[in-house]
Amino acid sequence: MRQFYLYPAILFFLWVATGFAPVERLLGVNFMASAQAQGQPTAAQQIPPGTREVPARAIPVPDTVSPQMQAVIARPFDPAFNLVPQTTAEWKARVEKVALATLAGLPKLRETLEVTVQPTTMAGVQVFIVTPKVIAPQNRDRVLMHLHGGVRVFGPGESGTREAILMAGFGGFKVISVDYRMPPDFPFPAALDDAVAVYRNLLQTTDAKKVGIFGASAGGSLTITTLLRAKMEGLPMPGAIAPGTPTVDLTKTGDTLFTNAMVDNFLGTQDGFIRATALLYANGRDLKDPLLSPIYGDVQGFPPAILTSGTRDLYLSNTVRMHRKLRAAGVEAVLQMWEGQSHVQYMSDITAPEVKEYHNEVARFFELHLGR
Amino acid sequence: MRQFYLYPAILFFLWVATGFAPVERLLGVNFMASAQAQGQPTAAQQIPPGTREVPARAIPVPDTVSPQMQAVIARPFDPAFNLVPQTTAEWKARVEKVALATLAGLPKLRETLEVTVQPTTMAGVQVFIVTPKVIAPQNRDRVLMHLHGGVRVFGPGESGTREAILMAGFGGFKVISVDYRMPPDFPFPAALDDAVAVYRNLLQTTDAKKVGIFGASAGGSLTITTLLRAKMEGLPMPGAIAPGTPTVDLTKTGDTLFTNAMVDNFLGTQDGFIRATALLYANGRDLKDPLLSPIYGDVQGFPPAILTSGTRDLYLSNTVRMHRKLRAAGVEAVLQMWEGQSHVQYMSDITAPEVKEYHNEVARFFELHLGR
Repeated sequence: MRQFYLYPAILFFLWVATGFAPVERLLGVNFMASAQAQGQPTAAQQIPPGTREVPARAIPVPDTVSPQMQAVIARPFDPAFNLVPQTTAEWKARVEKVALATLAGLPKLRETLEVTVQPTTMAGVQVFIVTPKVIAPQNRDRVLMHLHGGVRVFGPGESGTREAILMAGFGGFKVISVDYRMPPDFPFPAALDDAVAVYRNLLQTTDAKKVGIFGASAGGSLTITTLLRAKMEGLPMPGAIAPGTPTVDLTKTGDTLFTNAMVDNFLGTQDGFIRATALLYANGRDLKDPLLSPIYGDVQGFPPAILTSGTRDLYLSNTVRMHRKLRAAGVEAVLQMWEGQSHVQYMSDITAPEVKEYHNEVARFFELHLGR
Repeated sequence: MRQFYLYPAILFFLWVATGFAPVERLLGVNFMASAQAQGQPTAAQQIPPGTREVPARAIPVPDTVSPQMQAVIARPFDPAFNLVPQTTAEWKARVEKVALATLAGLPKLRETLEVTVQPTTMAGVQVFIVTPKVIAPQNRDRVLMHLHGGVRVFGPGESGTREAILMAGFGGFKVISVDYRMPPDFPFPAALDDAVAVYRNLLQTTDAKKVGIFGASAGGSLTITTLLRAKMEGLPMPGAIAPGTPTVDLTKTGDTLFTNAMVDNFLGTQDGFIRATALLYANGRDLKDPLLSPIYGDVQGFPPAILTSGTRDLYLSNTVRMHRKLRAAGVEAVLQMWEGQSHVQYMSDITAPEVKEYHNEVARFFELHLGR
């Protein structure tokens, strides 16, 4: 009795497993025959061969992660997560709302991690210089350039500095966080222009081998397109990069966009809002342009790279595909993966040991690979 | 009309999403109130907070892998995959059936990969010496010890040599494949005793640093428990290890045992057959004994390790957790992940470029880390 809610689920599974037959029998009709009689393809014919029919499931919060990360994994979907703004004003209101929420948390974050943030400009682009209290001697003439995430629309101004504060605070590096221009006002290639302009400017004072570039999600993809453009313009490669769960393919391509749909509690699905942000950014260009979707680019000659994702991440496949592409091109690329985490949750709750460990891993990677 | 089969799925999703309310309303009853009146926990109370309710889905074969790998991913479940043998005779019949099917393919495999296989014994344990036609000069005094997979019951005798043939052929190493004893006749610790005995014997002729150990699934787990036992017995560590999607936890622990259940077309689910093999092997011992489930062991001092899994792998979380545990212990451990692949499919079809690439990666790792 107490498990009465399971019966419909079991019936549903059986119904799927048996090719939907019981419903027809229950109702005393034969939909298939009816469809066939009208010359229409049947359900069985419409499902491509090899398609995996997975029944509905209830997936518990794993006990293999810290209590803080369990709380992050247990978060419900934001009810508004997949609402698509219909006008420029709606896009701006949505971006503004998220920015205000992020900004509210930054003073405490800077204080906790003992980090200072100074706005300035480089090559006409607004940037934030993020400086930790302590920088180890071997890292004092090294610098990390940061390209924030936010599906190419979120994170304007100081609201984009959160990831930089974490890396500066946990990793002990000076970070230059680029406040690149974004849609709806500035679609592609504004963000890329800004990132490359700051990188070029930085090379006037710093050996490229002593520069690392990192970013999460859209920022991870922008990290890679920045290198593609730098190569095209004859600029030297940086010493190392750290693209976190990079959204390197703006098309709906990659197996975990299907297997982890509605399993990832941060993004939910690529359909809807995420697709809308991609189209807004691309502004009519082919989504498979390598400067939009760098998985289609030429990564020969790239510097060492550390890529990160989580087992529930919608963009796990993007990360895995990018890692394999780098390896196939002979790049010293390593992959780290986090148990149970959805998109970018490796930088969610700063009290979670996993978040500290992630930043330690990336900082060690930069220490190992940046020029001395 | 042609998508009539979607309506019940949508209704089911809505019904789950709304807390099962519509069904109650439809039927004009209130199960919750009824349950509460009887002092029983309600459905809402029974579902732990944070549980992710994922609707039924149809997951297409990804187009991001080779045609050969697409065919592997498209394979249907073996109808018998989750039947649990009830008697010793039934276990033996099942093992024999699988062994015969594997053996049938070995002559062609050896011929294609230009590998010879020679049975012999070491320390009283049956082994197979697997030798490729060409061994690069730097690898001539190095040797790989192989511990085959097969959920601790499959792969007796020569039928366990398939993985060793692939590694010898693609990787160009001499391989010693250990025909360790297995249940139902020989449960734990027979397999571990045999693996350690062969390793100890091997050290009489070969510097430990020139020995690599590898294996898939149960063989990956056995690789790690062999090192735990070697440490306990004061034996030196080998030069490097390559546990492929190691089943390092015999309990149902790890997020992808839930998220990838019935997504992995090779294993399906941990419930049923796999659990039965674990209990058969453990023979009454605590499944969390580190020599059964090495995720609970002490991996300090382990040599460099390369771990492998796939995005659809039921044991993705086991692999990820083991990788993180090794990293946390300061071990030079790297992770590689394959798009769309279920358990051990990185060594499925030898004509798939991914299978060749996997072996090249592991061989390069051994070349880099084994003693010179």
